[in-house]
Amino acid sequence: MTGPVVVLVDPQMGENIGMCARAMLNCGLTEMRIVRPRDGWPNQKAIDASSGAVDVIENAALFDTVEEAVADLTRIYATTGRKREMVETVMTPRAAAADIRKRESTGTERCGVLFGGERSGLTTEDVALADVILRVPLNPDFKSLNLAQAVLLVGYEWFTAEDATPDSTVDIGDSRPATRNEIDIMIERLGRGLDDGGFFRSPDMRPTVMRNIRMLFQRSGLTDQDIRTVHGIVESLRRAGPEPRKGG
Amino acid sequence: MTGPVVVLVDPQMGENIGMCARAMLNCGLTEMRIVRPRDGWPNQKAIDASSGAVDVIENAALFDTVEEAVADLTRIYATTGRKREMVETVMTPRAAAADIRKRESTGTERCGVLFGGERSGLTTEDVALADVILRVPLNPDFKSLNLAQAVLLVGYEWFTAEDATPDSTVDIGDSRPATRNEIDIMIERLGRGLDDGGFFRSPDMRPTVMRNIRMLFQRSGLTDQDIRTVHGIVESLRRAGPEPRKGG
Repeated sequence: MTGPVVVLVDPQMGENIGMCARAMLNCGLTEMRIVRPRDGWPNQKAIDASSGAVDVIENAALFDTVEEAVADLTRIYATTGRKREMVETVMTPRAAAADIRKRESTGTERCGVLFGGERSGLTTEDVALADVILRVPLNPDFKSLNLAQAVLLVGYEWFTAEDATPDSTVDIGDSRPATRNEIDIMIERLGRGLDDGGFFRSPDMRPTVMRNIRMLFQRSGLTDQDIRTVHGIVESLRRAGPEPRKGG
Repeated sequence: MTGPVVVLVDPQMGENIGMCARAMLNCGLTEMRIVRPRDGWPNQKAIDASSGAVDVIENAALFDTVEEAVADLTRIYATTGRKREMVETVMTPRAAAADIRKRESTGTERCGVLFGGERSGLTTEDVALADVILRVPLNPDFKSLNLAQAVLLVGYEWFTAEDATPDSTVDIGDSRPATRNEIDIMIERLGRGLDDGGFFRSPDMRPTVMRNIRMLFQRSGLTDQDIRTVHGIVESLRRAGPEPRKGG
C-alpha cells in the first residue's frame, strides 16, 4: 500500500507540519509535499513535533506552486469546509478513501489530497485544481479542524478502508474459552450450593432462576480460568459459613 | 443527541486538554470530566487552546478518582493501544460508536470513554473499570496518537455513525442540473460546427465520435450554466476563424 500524497499548501507553524507527519505515519502514509512553508525549510520545530515520524519530514518535497506539487498526480482531492461558488463533486473522507483505494489498486493512478494552511485554508484557485472536494462531516456549528486533525481523519479513513480489524473481539490472553461442559459442571455445583443454602423459596422457581444465572455467566464469555475462579468462589463461600448477624 | 462523556485521566498539559475540548465540540460532544489534571484547574492554557470551545472547558467536572468520575455511567469504554493481561471485549471506535448510539437511544444508558494521560495512558486498574477496550486500527509500527487526536477519532466515529451526509454529491451553487433536452440541443449545435469544420474524415465515424463527445459532457454533470458556456464556446470558436499557421 502506498496511499495518497499529502500536500500541505501554505502551512505556517513548523509544529503543525510535524504533527501532520505524525498523523500521516499513524495511518501508514509517508509521502508529504509542502508548498511555500511560511517559516522556511527544513524546520527543526517540524522535526521535534513529529514524535518520531522524522522520515516523513526528511523525505518531504518542497514546491513553489500547487500546480507543480500535483503535476504528476492523476486524481486530486481538496479538503475544505467552506462552500465554494463552483460546480464540483463533494465527498466524505470515507467515500474518498474507498475511491482512492480503488484507483490506486489499478496501478495507473496516483492520488493526492490538498490541505490549506492554518490561517485561511485553500484558495478557490487551489480547490479548482482538484477533481473532488473532501468535506468532513462535523458539528455544523463548530467545524474548524486544525491542520493535523484534518490530515488524521483523511488518513484514518484511508487506513481503515482496507483494515481487517474485526469490529469486536475478546482478548483472553493466555486463557482459552470455556467449553459448554465446563460451564454445565460449574452451574450444577453452584445450584447444589444454592439448594443447600435455601436460596429457592419455592421449587417452582428453580429452573427459571438457574437459567437466568447460567445466562448471566454465559454472557460474559467465560474462559477456563473464569471457571476455576467460580469453583473457588463457591467452595470458599460454603466454607466461610453464615455471616454474623448485624448488631448481633 | 447527547453523546458519550469524555473522561480524561491524569492529563498533563493544559494545551492538550484545550485541544480535546475543541475536538469534542467538532464532533458535537460537550461533556468533559477530568481526573487529577497535573497542572491544576481551571487552566488558562486549556481555554486558549480550545479555539472557542470554551463552554466545554468551563463545564468540565473535576474528580479525584476514576471511580467517582464514572460512578453514574452504565457503560464504559477505555481507549488503549497496549495489550493487557485481562479478558475484555475489544472494539474498534466505529463499532463502539454504533454500540453507544444504540444504548443511548434507549434513554436508560449513559456511556463514557476513558482517555489516559500523555505520559503513559491508562493504568490496568483504570482499564479494568471499563466494559470494553477501544482500540483504534492504526499503523502497527507507529500507533501512538496524541490525546486530542484519540478524542477526535472516537468523537468523529460517534458523530458520523448517525450523520446523514451522502457519500458523494455535486455542489452546483445557484445553478440547476441541465435537462436532457438542453444537452441534446447543445450536442447538435456542436456537431454542426464539427461537420462544417471538417472534423469527421469519414462519415462512418461520426455516430461513434459524437456519442463519445456526448458521454464526455454527460460525465461531468452539466448545469444550465455549463450549457450556456458551451454554446458560447462553439459560437466564439466559429467566429474566431482559423488559427494563423505556425511560422506562416
